[in-house]
Order: sequence, then structure tokens, then C-alpha cells
Amino acid sequence: MPTSALPADFLRAIAEGFPPDFLTREPAELSEYGRDWTRVYTPAPSAVALPRSTDEVARLLALCHQHQVAVVPSGGRTGLAGGAVAARGEVVLSLQRMARMEPVDLLGNTVRVQAGAVTEAVHHHCAEHGLTWPVDFASKGSSTVGGNIATNAGGVKVIRYGLTRQWVLGLQVVTAEGQVLELNGALEKNNTGTDLRQLFIGSEGTLGVITEATLKLTQLPGRQDVFLFAVPDVAAVLRLFRDARQQTSFLISAYEFFTDRCLARLQRHRKLRSPFEAPSGCYVLLEAEAKDSAAVEAWLGSLFERGLVTDGTQAQGASQAAELWALREGISESLSATGLPHKNDISLPVAGLEAFCGELESLFTARYPGWEICLFGHIGDGNLHVNVMKPDDMEKAAFLARTKEADPTMFELVKKHGGSISAEHGIGLLKKDYLGYSRSPAELELLRALKRTLDPRGILNPGKVIDS
Amino acid sequence: MPTSALPADFLRAIAEGFPPDFLTREPAELSEYGRDWTRVYTPAPSAVALPRSTDEVARLLALCHQHQVAVVPSGGRTGLAGGAVAARGEVVLSLQRMARMEPVDLLGNTVRVQAGAVTEAVHHHCAEHGLTWPVDFASKGSSTVGGNIATNAGGVKVIRYGLTRQWVLGLQVVTAEGQVLELNGALEKNNTGTDLRQLFIGSEGTLGVITEATLKLTQLPGRQDVFLFAVPDVAAVLRLFRDARQQTSFLISAYEFFTDRCLARLQRHRKLRSPFEAPSGCYVLLEAEAKDSAAVEAWLGSLFERGLVTDGTQAQGASQAAELWALREGISESLSATGLPHKNDISLPVAGLEAFCGELESLFTARYPGWEICLFGHIGDGNLHVNVMKPDDMEKAAFLARTKEADPTMFELVKKHGGSISAEHGIGLLKKDYLGYSRSPAELELLRALKRTLDPRGILNPGKVIDS
Repeated sequence: MPTSALPADFLRAIAEGFPPDFLTREPAELSEYGRDWTRVYTPAPSAVALPRSTDEVARLLALCHQHQVAVVPSGGRTGLAGGAVAARGEVVLSLQRMARMEPVDLLGNTVRVQAGAVTEAVHHHCAEHGLTWPVDFASKGSSTVGGNIATNAGGVKVIRYGLTRQWVLGLQVVTAEGQVLELNGALEKNNTGTDLRQLFIGSEGTLGVITEATLKLTQLPGRQDVFLFAVPDVAAVLRLFRDARQQTSFLISAYEFFTDRCLARLQRHRKLRSPFEAPSGCYVLLEAEAKDSAAVEAWLGSLFERGLVTDGTQAQGASQAAELWALREGISESLSATGLPHKNDISLPVAGLEAFCGELESLFTARYPGWEICLFGHIGDGNLHVNVMKPDDMEKAAFLARTKEADPTMFELVKKHGGSISAEHGIGLLKKDYLGYSRSPAELELLRALKRTLDPRGILNPGKVIDS
Repeated sequence: MPTSALPADFLRAIAEGFPPDFLTREPAELSEYGRDWTRVYTPAPSAVALPRSTDEVARLLALCHQHQVAVVPSGGRTGLAGGAVAARGEVVLSLQRMARMEPVDLLGNTVRVQAGAVTEAVHHHCAEHGLTWPVDFASKGSSTVGGNIATNAGGVKVIRYGLTRQWVLGLQVVTAEGQVLELNGALEKNNTGTDLRQLFIGSEGTLGVITEATLKLTQLPGRQDVFLFAVPDVAAVLRLFRDARQQTSFLISAYEFFTDRCLARLQRHRKLRSPFEAPSGCYVLLEAEAKDSAAVEAWLGSLFERGLVTDGTQAQGASQAAELWALREGISESLSATGLPHKNDISLPVAGLEAFCGELESLFTARYPGWEICLFGHIGDGNLHVNVMKPDDMEKAAFLARTKEADPTMFELVKKHGGSISAEHGIGLLKKDYLGYSRSPAELELLRALKRTLDPRGILNPGKVIDS
């Protein structure tokens, strides 16, 4: 276990070998850089390092390795699992000064950026060439490329483009010992043994620090149509999904769902009007790029005849599209504004979703009467955001204590249906105790062995994901 | 280093614990199962094991680990790098009896298969539901899913669908010690720490034995149009590529190229007629799925006006499409039929292709006069198949000896331009000595460390990819 007080030799070496503003120990900075969006851990780093180059990162890590100083790699700190929290005297290694973006390579459709480049800045940088890096979610204005890669970020466009992993050609990584690895350059194809990039993608900064990446780009998508459908239940959400996916007249860009309980709280909070007259059990937001508009029209007409939807509306223009999206994207905020939600981000095989949702409802009705379950998420990827609301007549402390018991109940069900306890948010600190519901003892042992191999002194983000 | 003669205790344990036909030592079988498509190594395994279940694989590997017996995992043995060759007394572990395919999951668009399932059989199994596993190449009639995954197979459709890695949801892997890992189930999203699947994909059987996989499927593509274009040189091939990729009226399914030298040898061997009157420096085969036929027509017309092509033809119907494809797919055979080719399968960043091809030509003209370089390949992915032809007046032995010197010359150039010495064929035995041109000393050390972590006694495909 690395020490949490910084050794005098280490501090002397930093003072001698780096610029004066390399390290800060300013209390306000420690507090700011020590936390992420979880807001449940008290930030307590010893210092914040702000390198300007890969060389500085490498020299810092070599020193940390030598003096066994714990390091928390830090991007935009928009994570929801505590992966970038520094609560135990670590040194935060912030990549924010390393945000350079090189010119877009228009023949290769790639761009090389430093890890601290903000996701949305990359989008703007590429959009002027008609290109995009299709990693897209709510926190893109603050999140960084390095953090996106270290957490293999998801989002609403995964159904069309896949996860961040698919959009990384090259990685520059600094190891725990301060060695710089240049992995895969700008190559699409490179079958020269085990792909070492993959070790670092999604490892939450526990195996190495990502300093640069060559991103794979794609053409900006064409005009998107946005639809909202009313259907009775989860089974109907999935029937419609299967039908939509078989269509050749359009390409699905997003397939999101939410239940009537989510909509009701959104309406209370945002004072929005439902586009439908009658309430319905579930709602589906479909975003699609049409290839054959006449065929899309015909398909839409057929949905009612075939009983696949009970109601539906298509956005006319960008502002109506934004209104429909607001119904989906306003849910998280509305749940927090109208009560106290306890959140989980899980995934199931698509074929197991219906049974899981049914069993979850029955189980909670029996064991936790009065707990309202609000379900929404990227259901086309099998990804459910499960929000359990505190009953109005229950004390907050009592509720939080009981969620500690309810989580394993739900994770047991997730495990039974072959699901994951973390679809896209990661493990960090928040889900570490539950990792065994998604990983077997043999897998956990292998994860620990990899950690020992790549970070023998355990200085990289110690205590995150697994205890080594 | 594992011993090559099989220990008596090991053979006794096999005889007692497995069916009588589990192990064969029949000379004809040893010869057959000991080789792959490279045909340059003399097969010499000690035995061939033919398990029927994952349990048998696990028990076999536990025994091999215990007795330190070397194992060569074996699929369809269509590899071109010697990865499945058993030339040093190893036990071949053939997965051919494990070829079960479960019913297609039509809600999840997935299928679970055993590793020995033949690639093309999977295609047929899925096609009846309008779905496909888009891993597709010439050897699909013999290659197996396990081999495809272990080598992260490529092919002509990579430009549209990506490599095999993208189409594997779940993996069942048996470790060197005989432990069964079930990785990722059937999940699209599962951010629970380092993705262990990725360790085994593309590792050529050196880290574990793949026994089952849950494959991700996609809709069968729509009608494809096939075009052949004549252009003066590689620069023009790339100009046309950039232009084609910017079009929104079609989706590129294949973008292949070959030079006039390839076409000339194909015409000599196959007695085919070129579709064009005048010869040209390079030819491009474009396969595309139209979204807007009128716009595709307009684009085609503009190619001549804008000087992007000097000639072009579009296949009318399936038989003409097959004729155009034959021009590309007949090259490899035609080179072998009209001379002695020395082959390399390399990749470059797309932006570095033009400079690389020019420098390669100059270098070989100067150093190896009379050696004809025939270039073709998946140029849209930066993948070149470089075939150097023996001059007619040179002895075969002298030529082969000089290629040993010419290869490093070319690999030096590949390295200079940030390329890979193996785009899709892998490293196996054939490219092992050259791995340092694509991997740094730090990477090689990490590859060795992973090997020691996962296979501490070095029994899995020893001597392939790297020496541990």
C-alpha cells in the first residue's frame, strides 16, 4: 500500500525537476481535483500535478514508482463511479494542460489528440471537415478523451457506433514505472500479437496513464428523424425494437426507453406536456437516419395496424426533435428534483430484459413495498438505468441503509440473467464491493495478476476497481 | 521449455480419463494436423487430441500443465503465418469435434457456437434469419470461429464491418492451467474493469484456448453494386478513395486495388480479358450498397469529368459482378502460377501509403534489379499484399536467400512510415524474427510478461509470436 503522506525526497525531486507551477497543494484545488460527479467521497489528495507533456508525466510516474506514491489519473472528472476520486492522500495527475489537437488527417480520417482534450472540442475540431468522433453523451462538454478511453465510455449512440473502444486507433500510455508505450500508431489493421491497447481501454487508470490517442473518425451522420412511441410494456418495447432493426429503410441512431413513472416525474418537475393524450406503460424514443423516406412512412403506418404501438409522433424540425429528446434526457434531473433516487446502471442480454424487468418488479414489490422503480435507458444495447425512489414516508438514512441490502438483491437477479452490474459507468470505488456479481473468482484473480504485472508497486489508482 | 516426448504418466492419464478415440498418433493424422497453409514447416506433432467438450479441453490442459506438455490449439489450419504448425513434438488440440451451433437469438441478434464451427457454416446458419456474422474471406469454407477469433481475422469487408474483434460478444476460454473462463456472456455493454476477452482475441493461442463464443450478428447487407475503375497510380487510388468515402449516397463494402503487373499475370494465367481497352497503372474494385441510386449515377459521371478515373465499368448483374471480383481474387493464385512470389502482408497508415509505395519501388529497383513487385490488397484499410516475384534468370535458392535480406529492408521502410509487418495474417512462426519492426522493446517485454502471467509453464503454442 503506498503511503499517503508525500515523502520529503519526492517533493524535493519535484521541486528540482519540474516547473514551479507543476504541483499545487492549494486547499481549494485539492478539494476540486479530488472529486468527481459522484459527490459521495470527501476529496483529500496530497497534491495535484499538472504536467504539460508526456515527458513530464513519465518523469512524475518514475518518481512516484520510486517513492511508492499513489497516483490518481484525472481527466474531466465527470465519472459516476468514483474512479477519479482522490480521498486517501494520493497525488492527482491531471491531464488538463495536455489538450492539444493536431490537424485532422483527411486521407486517413483520423486525428491525434492529447488526453486532456475535451470530447466536445474534438467534435468541433472535426465537424468543420464533415467528420466526427462518435463518442457522445451528456457530459461531453467537460469529459476528456483520456477519460473517455480509460472508462470505455458509452452513451446514446452506442447502438449505431459501438463503444469508445472501437474508435481508438493509437494510444500513447505511460506505465507505472514511467515508460512510454506507443501502441498501434494510426493503423486499422495490425495483427502482431496481443493488442496491448485493449489492456488500457476501460481499465479506469489502474494499469497505465493515457497521454495521447489517435482517434478514428467517421462522416457526420445525415439528417436524423426523431420519433416517440407509446407502448404498453417492456415486452412491447422489445417487439418494436426487433421490428425496427429489421427495417432496411433506415439506420437506428438511438433506441431509448422510459416508463410512465419517469414521465410522470418529468412532467411534475419540468411542467412539460406529454405529446400523447392517453398515458401508456412505456415510451420509446427512436432516432433514425432514413435511407428511403417512402418506406419509412409505410413502416410507420404499419406499426398501428400491426399493434406494435398504441400511439406515436414524429418531430417536425429540430426544435420538436429537441423537445422529444428533452423527455428522455430530462429524466435523471427530474428524478432527483422530485425525490431521492438510488441509481444503478446495469445491462442484460437483450433477450433477458423482459424476464429481468418482470422479476425485479415482483421482487421489490414483495420485499420493499412503496419503493417506486423508475426504469429508463439505452434498451437497444441491453442497458437499463434503474432508479429506485425513496418512499416519502421513509427517513433518508433508513432508505440509504436499506439500499445497501437491496443492491445485492438486484445484483443477484442481474447475475442470474447473465447481466452486468455496470453497463457503462464503470466500477471505480462505488461498485467495487459488488464486482463479484459480474466477474468470477478466476476472472478476479486474473485481473489482480494483470495489475501486479503492470503496476507491481500498486501506485496507479490504488483501491479502484479491485484491491490488489 | 516443455519436453517434446510425451511422458508415460501423461499418456496413462489420457488413456484412463478420456474416450479411446480422444488421442491419435496415426502418422497420416500427425502430418495432416501438424501443418497449416504455409507449407514451409515439416509437421511433427507427438499426438492429436480431439475433445468433444469444454470439460475435456480443460482436463487435457490441466494434464499438459502438470506434465509440462506443449499444446498447439488447432482450428481449420488455414493460417498463413505458421501459428497452428506443430513441428516440435507438441500435442495438437483440435477443436474440430466441437462445432455445435445454438439457435440464433433473434431478439439479441447473437449466436452461441463452439470454437470448431466453420465460418461459412455460421454464415449459412444465420442467413436464413436475414442475419450474418460479417467475418468473411477466401478460406471461410475451412476456417473456424475459434481460429478467426484467435487471429482477429480480417478480410475484404473490414472497411465496412471492422475486424473479428468487433463481432465477439462472449468468449469461453480455457487457461493454460485448465480453468474455464466465461467472459462477457452476451453483453454489448459491460464496463467492469479490464476486458479480459481482448487478451485472447488475436493472441494466436498463446494465452488460452477458445472453446466457445457468443457472436454478434448484423442484418445481411442489401444489394451490392460492383465497379472497376482504371487509375494511373497509387496517388490516384487514394484520391478516389477519399472522394468515395465522402459520398453519402452509398456505403462502401469493399475498396480493393491491384496494379497492372498483377492484372498482366492474371491475364496470362486465367486467359481473362481486361474490361478496359487501354492498360492503366492501377485498378480499383469498389463494392458499394447504394442508398440513393440517382446520386450514385451522378457521382459516377462526375468521376471522369473531375479526372478521378481514366476508365470504369459497372457490373450488370451477379455474373458480371463475379467476373470483376475474379480479377481481384484470382491474383494470388495467378502470381504463383506464373512465377515464384515472395509474400508479405503489411499495413500502413492510409496517409503514408503513397510515399511508402514510391520509396519501396525505388529501393527495390536500386538494390534488387529485375525483381517485379506486384502490389494488391485492401487499400482502404491501409493493407497491402506485397508480392515480390523471382526474376526468371535467378535460381530459386538464391532468390529465397536474398529475400531474407530484402525483408528487413522492406520492414525498415514499413517501420519508418509507422506501419505493421503483419496486417492480418499474424506473426506465428513466419514473422516472429521480425516482430521488433512493429513492436518496441518495452512492448515486447510486456508481451512476455503477459505470457508468463497467463501461461507460467509456457505450454500454450510455445515459440509462436514471441519466445517467452
